[in-house]
Amino acid sequence: MTAAGLTPVTFSILSLGDELVHGRTVDTNSAWLAQELVEMGLEPEELCTLDDGEERIAATILRLAKCARVVLVTGGLGPTLDDATREAVARAAGVPLVDDTSALAWLHARFESMGRDMVDSNLRQIRFPEGAKVLENPKGTAPGFHIRIGTAEVFALPGPPREMGPMFRDSVSPILDRLGLALAPLPRARFYLHSHSESVFAEDVAIAGDWMARDADPLLAVTASHGILSVQLTARFRSEQSAERLQVRARAFRELFAGSIYSESEASPAAALGAELILQGAQVTLAESCTGGGIAQALTEVPGISAVFQRSFVTYADRAKHEELDVSAALLEEHGAVSEPVVVEMARGAAERAGASLALAVSGIAGPGGGSEEKPVGLVWFGVFVDGEVAAHSRRFPASDRAQVRSWAVRTGLMLLLQAAHSRTSITRKSAASRHK
Amino acid sequence: MTAAGLTPVTFSILSLGDELVHGRTVDTNSAWLAQELVEMGLEPEELCTLDDGEERIAATILRLAKCARVVLVTGGLGPTLDDATREAVARAAGVPLVDDTSALAWLHARFESMGRDMVDSNLRQIRFPEGAKVLENPKGTAPGFHIRIGTAEVFALPGPPREMGPMFRDSVSPILDRLGLALAPLPRARFYLHSHSESVFAEDVAIAGDWMARDADPLLAVTASHGILSVQLTARFRSEQSAERLQVRARAFRELFAGSIYSESEASPAAALGAELILQGAQVTLAESCTGGGIAQALTEVPGISAVFQRSFVTYADRAKHEELDVSAALLEEHGAVSEPVVVEMARGAAERAGASLALAVSGIAGPGGGSEEKPVGLVWFGVFVDGEVAAHSRRFPASDRAQVRSWAVRTGLMLLLQAAHSRTSITRKSAASRHK
Repeated sequence: MTAAGLTPVTFSILSLGDELVHGRTVDTNSAWLAQELVEMGLEPEELCTLDDGEERIAATILRLAKCARVVLVTGGLGPTLDDATREAVARAAGVPLVDDTSALAWLHARFESMGRDMVDSNLRQIRFPEGAKVLENPKGTAPGFHIRIGTAEVFALPGPPREMGPMFRDSVSPILDRLGLALAPLPRARFYLHSHSESVFAEDVAIAGDWMARDADPLLAVTASHGILSVQLTARFRSEQSAERLQVRARAFRELFAGSIYSESEASPAAALGAELILQGAQVTLAESCTGGGIAQALTEVPGISAVFQRSFVTYADRAKHEELDVSAALLEEHGAVSEPVVVEMARGAAERAGASLALAVSGIAGPGGGSEEKPVGLVWFGVFVDGEVAAHSRRFPASDRAQVRSWAVRTGLMLLLQAAHSRTSITRKSAASRHK
Repeated sequence: MTAAGLTPVTFSILSLGDELVHGRTVDTNSAWLAQELVEMGLEPEELCTLDDGEERIAATILRLAKCARVVLVTGGLGPTLDDATREAVARAAGVPLVDDTSALAWLHARFESMGRDMVDSNLRQIRFPEGAKVLENPKGTAPGFHIRIGTAEVFALPGPPREMGPMFRDSVSPILDRLGLALAPLPRARFYLHSHSESVFAEDVAIAGDWMARDADPLLAVTASHGILSVQLTARFRSEQSAERLQVRARAFRELFAGSIYSESEASPAAALGAELILQGAQVTLAESCTGGGIAQALTEVPGISAVFQRSFVTYADRAKHEELDVSAALLEEHGAVSEPVVVEMARGAAERAGASLALAVSGIAGPGGGSEEKPVGLVWFGVFVDGEVAAHSRRFPASDRAQVRSWAVRTGLMLLLQAAHSRTSITRKSAASRHK
C-alpha cells in the first residue's frame, strides 16, 4: 500500500458561471466529478460555486489549493471576456499568461474540421498560465490545462458537461494516476432493481442481515430514482478477504432480489430493454398518447435498435387512435382515451400494423389540465402486447407536474416491456423444456 | 430609495451533506434558493458544499458571514449525530445550545399527528443556538432557525427540498422583507437566439460597441447550450437612468439580432414553437427517423399542445417510410433514406396523412454505425412542409456521439419549424396587406 493509501488524497471542486450562482442552471458537473474522484480513492473537501469575477476566483483557488491536493475548476474557458478562469489561475499561480502555439495549430485544425471560421476572440482560448500543461478538448474549442499551485495540482476544465467529462477521463485521470494520487477503485458490484420502494427494500434487506450498517463490509449504497433502485456493493478495503466478502454478498443479493434485478450493467431501462430485444430478435412497436414519443425516443437512443424497431405511432388525439390504430370510435366514446379497453386496442392495433411481436400502448392524463375525480392527473394506462396476448396495467403517479408524470410513464412503460420480454423467454424456455420432455 | 437599493444585499448558500460532497446526489437546493433570492433583488456571492464535519462548517459559516448579508445553510438538521448544523452555527455564533420548550410541544404534536413514536434522538431537533428564532417546519420534523452572526442574517433550513422550499417561502422570505433586505429585482431583458456560436456572437456584439465589458450598464451575460444562446441584459443600478439605458440597449440588441432571436420569454424552442402554433391555430405533424420520436416528445411537453398536434410518425425503417408516409420505394432505393428527396416526400406524406398545415421530416445518420464517406455520421436532412410547399435543409453536426447528434437534430428541427411558422405569419400578413391594397 502506498502513502496515498494511508493518508487520503483530498480534492475540492470550483464551478464557475453566472448562470450557476444565480441558480438558472443546476450544477451537475461537481457531482459527476466528485463521484469520479471518490471512485479513484480521493476524498472530498469542498465544492464551491462562484460567478465570473477574476479576483474572487483567484482568491478562492488559493484558499482551496491550501487544503486540497487536487483542485478542479470547471467553466470560464470560453472565448468571451466574462470567461476569466485563465486570468484567475495565472493570478493565483503568480505567473503571466502566454500564447501556446501548438494549441493555436490545434484550434485552427479544429475549426477547419467543423467548417467554421475562427474569429479573433477564439485566440483567447490558446492563452494559458505560464508553465501550465495544455489538456486537449476532443469535443469543443476550449482546451483545458494543468498547473501546480503550492502543493496542489490544479486542473481547469471547460463547463459544458459533454466536453468536461471526456477531458477528465482522457487527460486528468491519467495524470492523477501518473502522480500516484489515484488508487485502483475498490472492488464492487452493481444492481438495478425495479418495483421496489427504498423503504420496502430496506426491510427486505434487513431480513437477510445487517447489510446496510455504516461499517458493513461490503458497504451497501442505494439510490432511488423514478421507480428504479441502483444498489452498489463496495468492498471496504483493498484486501483479498474484503474482495471475497463482496463476492459472497453479491451472490446472496442476487438470490434475494432475483425477481427485481433487471440489470447488473445498464442503469437505463431502455438500454436493458434494447439489449434484450436485440438478443431475442423480437420486433417491437409503440403506440404513445400522453408520453408523446418519449418511449420511442428513449428506445431509439440504443445503438443498433433498428434491428428490432421499425416504426411507432404517436396518437395524441382520439381520431388518430382510431385512424392509425383501429381503436373503435364507440370504445373511445364509451370509456374515454385513458382506459383499459382503449390501451388494449391501441397495443393490438400497433402490433398488427407494424407486424411486431411486442407492443406497448400508453394513454394517461399528464396534466396540468384534463383531470377529473374519476381520472385524476397522474393516471396512466399501459397495454402490453406479447405474441398475441395483451395485458393492461394502470398506475397513478404521485407527481404533480406534467414533465414528471410523463417521465414516470416513460420509465414504467419501458420496465413493463422489459418484464414482458423477460417473461417471453422464460415461457419459450419452459415450452422448449416441455417439448424436450 | 433605501440604502439597500444602492448597495446590493448579497447572499451565500452553504449546502451540507455527505451525499452531496461525494456526488451521489446533485444539489438542487442551492440553485432553487439562489433563484428565489435573485428574484428578491439579492446578489449571489458564493455557493458552497461541505460534508458533516462540525468544525469546518463553523469556520465556513464565519467566512461566509463576513462577506454576505444573508447566509442560508441547508441540511444537517436531522436527528442523528452526523447532523451537525445546530452545533456548528452555535459555535460560529459563540453561544451555547439551549432547549426550546415550545418546539418540544410542537414536535410531540407533530409525531402524534403522524401516528409515529418519538425517539430520544428526535430531542436533538429541539436544541437551538441561544438567541435563535425557531422556524416552523410544516412538512417535516426538523425545525429551522434564524440567528444573526456579526452583520449577517443566518438561516438554517432542512435538506429535503420539499421541506426546505415551504420553509423558505413561509418563514425566511417574510423575515428578509421585514428586515428591508428584499428588493424588487433589477430590471432586465432576456433574449433567446439560435444559429449563433458564442464566439461569433461576441464578434457581432463587438461591432455594435463594448456591450460585454464587465462594468457595462446594462450588464450582458450569455450562455450557450445546444446551439442556443441565452442572453440577459441586466440594469446595474436601481435608478431611472439605468432602467432607461437598459431599454435603449434592449432595442438596439433586438435590431442587431432580429434574424436570430426566436423568443424573449421561452428558453425552450419547443415552448416557443408550441406557443406560436397555438396562437396561429395551425395543425402540425412530424415524420421522424433518426430522432426516433424526440421531436414529438419535446413538442408534447408543452401544455395545451393537443389543440394543434394530433399525431406523428416514427418511421425508422425504409419500409415504414414507404408504408406509413407513401415515400416511393424507388426513391428510397435510388437516394437512400438520408437524402433530400426522401425527407421532402416524408414531410408531404405526413402532412397529407395527418391533415396538417405544417410538417417536419427528419432523416439522418446518428451513428455510431451507418456512416459513409458520402453520408457521414452527423449528416441530417430536414424537410419542412408549410401550406403545400416543402423546403429541405441539411446539417452536418460536429458531434461525435449518437445522443449528441440526435439532440442537435431535435433542436434544429424545432427551430426550422419555428422559422417556418414565423414566415407563415409574415406571408399571411403580406398577402393580407396586398389583398387590402
